[in-house]
Amino acid sequence: MLRTHNCGELNLNHTGNTVTLSGWVQRSRDLGGMTFIDLRDRYGITQLVFNMDSNASLCESARKLGREFVISVTGTVAERSNKNLKIPTGEIEIIVDQFEVLNSSKIPPFTIEDNTDGGDELRMKYRYLDLRRNPVRDNLMLRHRMAIETRNYMNNIGFIEVETPVLIKSTPEGARDFVVPSRMNEGQFYALPQSPQTFKQLLMVAGFDRYFQIVKCFRDEDLRADRQPEFTQIDCEMSFVTQDDILSTFEGLTKYLFRTVKGVEIEALPRMTFADAMKNYGNDKPDIRFGMTFVEITDLVKGKDFKVFDDAALVAGINVTGCAGYTRKQLDTLTDFVKRPQIGAGGLIYVRYNEDGTLKSSVDKFYSEDELKKWAAAFEARPGDLMLILAGDAAKTRKALSELRLEMGNQLGLRNPEVFAPLWVVDFPLLEWDEETQRYYAMHHPFTSPKPEDIPLLDSDPGRVRANAYDLVINGVEIGGGSIRIHNKELQKKMFTILGFTDEDAQAQFGFLMNAFEYGAPPHGGIAFGFDRMCSLFGGSESIRDYIAFPKNNAGRDVMIDSPAPIKQEQLDELKLKINL
Amino acid sequence: MLRTHNCGELNLNHTGNTVTLSGWVQRSRDLGGMTFIDLRDRYGITQLVFNMDSNASLCESARKLGREFVISVTGTVAERSNKNLKIPTGEIEIIVDQFEVLNSSKIPPFTIEDNTDGGDELRMKYRYLDLRRNPVRDNLMLRHRMAIETRNYMNNIGFIEVETPVLIKSTPEGARDFVVPSRMNEGQFYALPQSPQTFKQLLMVAGFDRYFQIVKCFRDEDLRADRQPEFTQIDCEMSFVTQDDILSTFEGLTKYLFRTVKGVEIEALPRMTFADAMKNYGNDKPDIRFGMTFVEITDLVKGKDFKVFDDAALVAGINVTGCAGYTRKQLDTLTDFVKRPQIGAGGLIYVRYNEDGTLKSSVDKFYSEDELKKWAAAFEARPGDLMLILAGDAAKTRKALSELRLEMGNQLGLRNPEVFAPLWVVDFPLLEWDEETQRYYAMHHPFTSPKPEDIPLLDSDPGRVRANAYDLVINGVEIGGGSIRIHNKELQKKMFTILGFTDEDAQAQFGFLMNAFEYGAPPHGGIAFGFDRMCSLFGGSESIRDYIAFPKNNAGRDVMIDSPAPIKQEQLDELKLKINL
Repeated sequence: MLRTHNCGELNLNHTGNTVTLSGWVQRSRDLGGMTFIDLRDRYGITQLVFNMDSNASLCESARKLGREFVISVTGTVAERSNKNLKIPTGEIEIIVDQFEVLNSSKIPPFTIEDNTDGGDELRMKYRYLDLRRNPVRDNLMLRHRMAIETRNYMNNIGFIEVETPVLIKSTPEGARDFVVPSRMNEGQFYALPQSPQTFKQLLMVAGFDRYFQIVKCFRDEDLRADRQPEFTQIDCEMSFVTQDDILSTFEGLTKYLFRTVKGVEIEALPRMTFADAMKNYGNDKPDIRFGMTFVEITDLVKGKDFKVFDDAALVAGINVTGCAGYTRKQLDTLTDFVKRPQIGAGGLIYVRYNEDGTLKSSVDKFYSEDELKKWAAAFEARPGDLMLILAGDAAKTRKALSELRLEMGNQLGLRNPEVFAPLWVVDFPLLEWDEETQRYYAMHHPFTSPKPEDIPLLDSDPGRVRANAYDLVINGVEIGGGSIRIHNKELQKKMFTILGFTDEDAQAQFGFLMNAFEYGAPPHGGIAFGFDRMCSLFGGSESIRDYIAFPKNNAGRDVMIDSPAPIKQEQLDELKLKINL
Repeated sequence: MLRTHNCGELNLNHTGNTVTLSGWVQRSRDLGGMTFIDLRDRYGITQLVFNMDSNASLCESARKLGREFVISVTGTVAERSNKNLKIPTGEIEIIVDQFEVLNSSKIPPFTIEDNTDGGDELRMKYRYLDLRRNPVRDNLMLRHRMAIETRNYMNNIGFIEVETPVLIKSTPEGARDFVVPSRMNEGQFYALPQSPQTFKQLLMVAGFDRYFQIVKCFRDEDLRADRQPEFTQIDCEMSFVTQDDILSTFEGLTKYLFRTVKGVEIEALPRMTFADAMKNYGNDKPDIRFGMTFVEITDLVKGKDFKVFDDAALVAGINVTGCAGYTRKQLDTLTDFVKRPQIGAGGLIYVRYNEDGTLKSSVDKFYSEDELKKWAAAFEARPGDLMLILAGDAAKTRKALSELRLEMGNQLGLRNPEVFAPLWVVDFPLLEWDEETQRYYAMHHPFTSPKPEDIPLLDSDPGRVRANAYDLVINGVEIGGGSIRIHNKELQKKMFTILGFTDEDAQAQFGFLMNAFEYGAPPHGGIAFGFDRMCSLFGGSESIRDYIAFPKNNAGRDVMIDSPAPIKQEQLDELKLKINL
């Protein structure tokens, strides 16, 4: 073995022991006749000492070691005179007797430090060096821990992990599939799964009762910061359950993960309907770490010749506690913020509730102080508060006000990444109408069951049907989502019809599932968690890339291995394919 | 909740309780005024009772329930008069008060019994019904258990599970890749990994020190019974280790899995060189559950005008204890066996060592009893034994004799699937010469390091270089294989040269790895286990398909979902592909 100990475990108890360590040269300092080297491995850093007086040639050799050289050293553990109590090995050092260079290193293109000088592109190209940095490795160790704890929890409550296939069949519903040409079945293609949805439902038909899997999924979509072409889900399904059973089971998992991985105790998760989330937060993934919920004053403000309000379908705002003192400049900046194209409000109305009890607004021309008092009452505002109000089309106003609310949360430090406020959002609509294609799309997916009491609406008013669907939202991020599924062939067929499938299309693509429903399919439902996002939330980062060992860039490329790449003509020929640029 | 208990947990302690169970109708029997239904779920079977006297309409309804109907019943737990002590719930039954049909079922195409009447193809098409059968579900539960125990063991000894990418880059070395066309990078392709080999090595360069992953891998090869286009590996890599460290670490895992999953204690694993395995067993994956090792008598048999032996490069045989009494017909059958084309021996010579001490052979014309006595001494045969001898080209003879040995092991019941005899085979050759393409191929893979003492042979006699490579073999099956890797850029380049790569090809395909070797790559090595095969070995089956939830058939097709399948023209257009049959 090339070491007796690792670089993180020696302490004063080992004083006098002869040890062998292996690792990387983190840094080297020459002080008078001494040379000190910090030797690093995954477990920590240990200080090595070389003495010019006692062994000049060894010390000379040590001085030639460059950053990131890999060495194996043997020496004696000794107490340090200049202790570093910040690290576990900081009370000792190794008086080196001999060492061997196991491998040299060119000078790395960026520093291997917690705060590196390397830019994003460079760090991606040399990802194997970026992964040497403690924060990046810690992210992946957190991910490992999350997976281990998830599996232990799920195993303990009787869930079986079953691997579902990666080479499946393309279905045009949903996002775009990655496809895989088949050599043995010429002209035909597999697809990579966007989720194991149909397979987990088949496992329920098969009587597996409780299934889970931590599994790679794939979507060929244009990429954003928090999207990767391949991503990981905690995928789960249960039989003979109601929505309540699923929510309480996965509330258990959520609490367990927070407790074991973060040491955080989570209270019972609140449940909020989609309708309430939209009305009070303008968002189906509300960040409930802070209040500042929406107040609608549409009726209160009409008929005073203020055209913006008179024409508006919705006038709504938020009360920002203690911000009456915001300067004109700060308010102008907020106005610019809401007017950004991606937010899209026409403007921002404010009302200052001054400490002296007076009210001052940007619409004083139209509204008397008495009228503003009525607004303040509606907002439950108190002296010192600032009311921010938007108006216009209802959906757009809610969306913009949601952004404004989150921005105020940021400005006031109410969105602490170490505070966790999970909730369930329930009763999602079953369908969404798409103006462009003039058809309904499944809001969750085509296998989601309508609420039994809304089934009659499927014929009369499909857009109003609510689904047995739910999302787990934490700190404004959708962490998981699921539904009680349809388990009846006729209802499933009807769903496909509403979604614009012909019977032939539905049969060709999902016939295997509908056939399975004819052989005793149990009531069932499930949920899937975005594992990458969950890890980044637990780790306190916004970017899922920081929690993926080898992520791809926004063009879907792995710049380290330079992939994708052209393939050989023989490969194309074997697959009976021609490139047709 | 649609049940208060599952179908496997009720017993006499619950007598008098009102319970709700949900499950499938396994079978139904009408006896006089009573109807008995066995209700099944994943956890077991519980007997339901309906009484025509006390509730005629309920009993009538129950009599209409078909096999595999899904029902939910509520009733009272009662002691059974006619107990079945073979099952945990066999002392009780449920006097049903009410039930609900949750779903009906068509008559299944085969019986849902441990021994079904369904053929292979039918069971694959209705895999969700086949998975309802206890033995099939038990296989997948064993697989789940194996994965959980593997992860716990690896986590406990400091290994981090890291997910490596599925969308990587095609490399022509090794088996054929599945490729995935990239829409965002027109005319370019990802490939699915045959193993995470280069990524796990990069994780070692990154200082992860101990990595593992249970991971899907892909090979587009023609399929056999024990091969699937997608399969699962336990993939592992360690830094700063010698071969010994790796063997002892994974000997630990092997013993742990046998102990926890099978309740079997395994002794220290023997280590056998590749050379010895070939010489003594004719096979690099020897089944050492029984002896019958090869005895070479080439020198002993020459010069007696028996042309078969005189012309043979190798004359070798096995001594089969206690089989001197084999009949002429049995020996003829064995002769036919070795002459099969896939075995390829020219014939079989036998020597019976009769109980009375006399020797009788099929070559008495050429050899005296005294000469046969010398053979018997070489074979360490005793009266009652049967010697079986093959002759010819050395490699072919060993291969055929190995098959004969295994056949005799089968005939004599020496290959009990509940006995486990693991061993390490070590010191594999680094390279294999291929006559057809007139080049060397890596026996393991191009990243395997030669034994340091054999490095000089790389220039003079590459075929004789031994590798730091090892296989875990259990009961004649290769369960895992690995090697100490090359971590030096120059040596890696040299390997690629020996394997016929131009510098440009090597750089284009593996440049990222060789570049990584320039930044302080530590010595490292690893191993990968065939997880599907491991599960089937633990489960006592020969077929890995029995341990895969949704396997593909020999044409690479999933007959249940009917995949692969044609894709839409728009998909091809978006990918800039044309099919060219």
